[in-house]
Amino acid sequence: QEKAPPALSDAQAKTADRLIDAGLEDDLAWDILESLTTEVGPRLGGSPAEARARDWGVAKLKALGFKNVRIETYEMPYWARVSESAEIISPFPQPLAVTALGRSKATPEGGVTGEVVRFPTLLALQAAPETGFEGKIVFVDEPMARTQDGSGYGTAVAKRSQAAVEAGKRGAVASLIRSAGTDSHRNPHTGGGLRGEGETAVPAAALSNPDADQLARALERAKGPVTVKLNLQVETAESVTSGNVVGEIPGQTDEIIVIGGHLDSWDLGTGAIDDASGIAITTAAAKLVGDLKGKPKRTLRVVMWGAEEVGIYGGKAYADAHKDEIDKHVLAAESDFGAGVVYRFDTRFSEEERPKAKVFEGALRRLAVTPGNNMAFGGADVGGVRDLGVPVVSLRQDGTDYFDLHHTPDDTLDKVDLTELRQNVAAWAAFLYIASELDGDFGRLPVKGDAQ
Amino acid sequence: QEKAPPALSDAQAKTADRLIDAGLEDDLAWDILESLTTEVGPRLGGSPAEARARDWGVAKLKALGFKNVRIETYEMPYWARVSESAEIISPFPQPLAVTALGRSKATPEGGVTGEVVRFPTLLALQAAPETGFEGKIVFVDEPMARTQDGSGYGTAVAKRSQAAVEAGKRGAVASLIRSAGTDSHRNPHTGGGLRGEGETAVPAAALSNPDADQLARALERAKGPVTVKLNLQVETAESVTSGNVVGEIPGQTDEIIVIGGHLDSWDLGTGAIDDASGIAITTAAAKLVGDLKGKPKRTLRVVMWGAEEVGIYGGKAYADAHKDEIDKHVLAAESDFGAGVVYRFDTRFSEEERPKAKVFEGALRRLAVTPGNNMAFGGADVGGVRDLGVPVVSLRQDGTDYFDLHHTPDDTLDKVDLTELRQNVAAWAAFLYIASELDGDFGRLPVKGDAQ
Ligand SMILES: [Zn+2]
Ligand SMILES: [Zn+2]
Ligand SMILES: [Zn+2]
Ligand SMILES: [Zn+2]
Repeated sequence: QEKAPPALSDAQAKTADRLIDAGLEDDLAWDILESLTTEVGPRLGGSPAEARARDWGVAKLKALGFKNVRIETYEMPYWARVSESAEIISPFPQPLAVTALGRSKATPEGGVTGEVVRFPTLLALQAAPETGFEGKIVFVDEPMARTQDGSGYGTAVAKRSQAAVEAGKRGAVASLIRSAGTDSHRNPHTGGGLRGEGETAVPAAALSNPDADQLARALERAKGPVTVKLNLQVETAESVTSGNVVGEIPGQTDEIIVIGGHLDSWDLGTGAIDDASGIAITTAAAKLVGDLKGKPKRTLRVVMWGAEEVGIYGGKAYADAHKDEIDKHVLAAESDFGAGVVYRFDTRFSEEERPKAKVFEGALRRLAVTPGNNMAFGGADVGGVRDLGVPVVSLRQDGTDYFDLHHTPDDTLDKVDLTELRQNVAAWAAFLYIASELDGDFGRLPVKGDAQ
Repeated sequence: QEKAPPALSDAQAKTADRLIDAGLEDDLAWDILESLTTEVGPRLGGSPAEARARDWGVAKLKALGFKNVRIETYEMPYWARVSESAEIISPFPQPLAVTALGRSKATPEGGVTGEVVRFPTLLALQAAPETGFEGKIVFVDEPMARTQDGSGYGTAVAKRSQAAVEAGKRGAVASLIRSAGTDSHRNPHTGGGLRGEGETAVPAAALSNPDADQLARALERAKGPVTVKLNLQVETAESVTSGNVVGEIPGQTDEIIVIGGHLDSWDLGTGAIDDASGIAITTAAAKLVGDLKGKPKRTLRVVMWGAEEVGIYGGKAYADAHKDEIDKHVLAAESDFGAGVVYRFDTRFSEEERPKAKVFEGALRRLAVTPGNNMAFGGADVGGVRDLGVPVVSLRQDGTDYFDLHHTPDDTLDKVDLTELRQNVAAWAAFLYIASELDGDFGRLPVKGDAQ
């Protein structure tokens, strides 16, 4: 059977255009964003604040007319910072601005003191001998590249998860990293720390970029050793309850398009760009499509995933809970890169369905969105369903300034630009409408672990 | 006797020009700036850190060849922050970023909780009735204008010193202000609080601008009262020893030109722009003039004033200690507005000596410095000698961005631009040389308190 050439009808093309017009004037996304960041504020995965965020999400989705609104719970381990401080003890006594990395071990009460050994990069630490660092504090001073597509982050996060492990292997008592961030403010960037090998990891914190500069200068100017004291206190629990908030715009068929953002944030800021913006953009876009006359062809499912920052627990739980209906999932996508404009549209469709990307690309062209590749990531929280074969797309956002704010106290509402937020809503509304209405699906991806 | 028209000789004009050339390539100011901010770091007036800064200053001036290097001590009351925190208790529980204002009283241990009453301006608070605020927390949400000349600051600081007094008069338990700052980062701006009337003042803190936004939004979105808890703990001492660091380039006469910056900083940052830059600029400029062949006509005295931030104790002590030689003080000036370029030259000469301003203006023209007025402030630390009749000048710096950083943790070395710093050194060197060599003096100002 020959496939129909992928295309929208004239009426559909006009509707997509009208959705873009509406998105560019949208006020709902801002209201959602302001409401979540003000009325809930910081909402660490697994915390009472995240539970309040779920209640907020349920109330918001119901008020907006979404159907089947529910919380899908799961259990997860809990980690939270209690206190954190650092100071140069000698030869230049002064405080340093630090923040504990996610899942860091605590130091002994009263802190741990050691001579600082600096490595310009993680690679240099990994190449260092495995002895000779007993009692030392390892400092990985690797900077991060500013990039539009966020690729500098992929390189920088390696030190965030590995410095503590490599330091521990070598007998060090703690590890410090230069923040994985591109700004020069004294707000250190937190973020997930440990990945595996947790046994050998030592307490781990990030210095703000100016403090990393300062420590590097102190090492240069000191005539002898530079000694630092680090005090990190944390609390943990083996298991707490968290959950995903789900709401739907029911379609004419049982096929599902799943989109959303993550509801949790790091504790330091109010998570305006990471990821209340994603929640706001996808919810507002779905609402615009839902407000069209008649039901969409496919069900539009908005998910506010929980506990992404601390281990993608919500995304994994979603995939697990929906395994049995995974074949109904036609497409998945997450908005989780702030509120910078969408500038590229990436897909991960099966090879034979790849031409359908052109339909989206054509509709998005007026928003200055350029065609991308077929290697879309899709978002951390759709990783679970992607691994089960569900195609994904990425509406790639301009992240040039994203890592100035990401995972810092400075991730607050004032950093979001309304015009840019609206461009996102417009792009997502058009995308979502087309994904819902287009004839035929987007194929299936190889199931992870399967022979290909 | 007819005055000679004020002018430089050709040789002097050439020397001034060569000093500007040298200033524009100067490396000394940066080295001083880096050394002070790295090796001492934060240096609160009256603290052990400020004592280390004095030792640093003495060593630095001696190493640079200054003569009569000494510390002139004085006694002062001491205030320091111990801890500070704030949080919205209800209806939207979350932390707020605050910092105690200088000389704030402590709250009771465990903090003080109250319903927030917002005033858009200090004027609105001052116009409010004197009862009805018992147990409340007063929030003065007045914003600050961004200006090149810093005039927005003069308006904004009124709330910093008066909010706590006005709140206390009305029975409130604490006061919060929107930071006197122009940035949007979660680093609140500290600064001198109380001015007089301390008896009625309540504990006083500044919210960062994003946190002031947040509190204002919470008040708008709450259906009922918004309750905040503020916990400020401070330590004080009736009297500690501080001091001014003084060094000289001896002249051919016993006339003195006194210049400098303040050595102390607030505790939150390393005081790179406020005021290590002033220390660096004036010391480097004096060194350039001192390196000329032969002695300057007048003695160039560099003073690193102590404890400016917490009450201008060093500036007052200097005037007091040097009363007896005040007539030898021909001119005074301080650099205390960061490291932005000098764009205007203001004087405060006697009316008959005002034409001498033209000599400076002519020399500075190539640095894009525009002639100013004869109402120069001179700097907080020369206020004492100005009030005793000593003429002053102000090398006015571009402060458009100064209050993004001023009195915050973000006042660090990375914020200083080397090219701009060098332009300052060039301007100060030319100014200082001319002030030293020009025939005749700059008159005397009315002594404060005298009949005019
Ligand atoms: Zn995220
Ligand atoms: Zn994140
Ligand atoms: Zn100052
Ligand atoms: Zn200051």
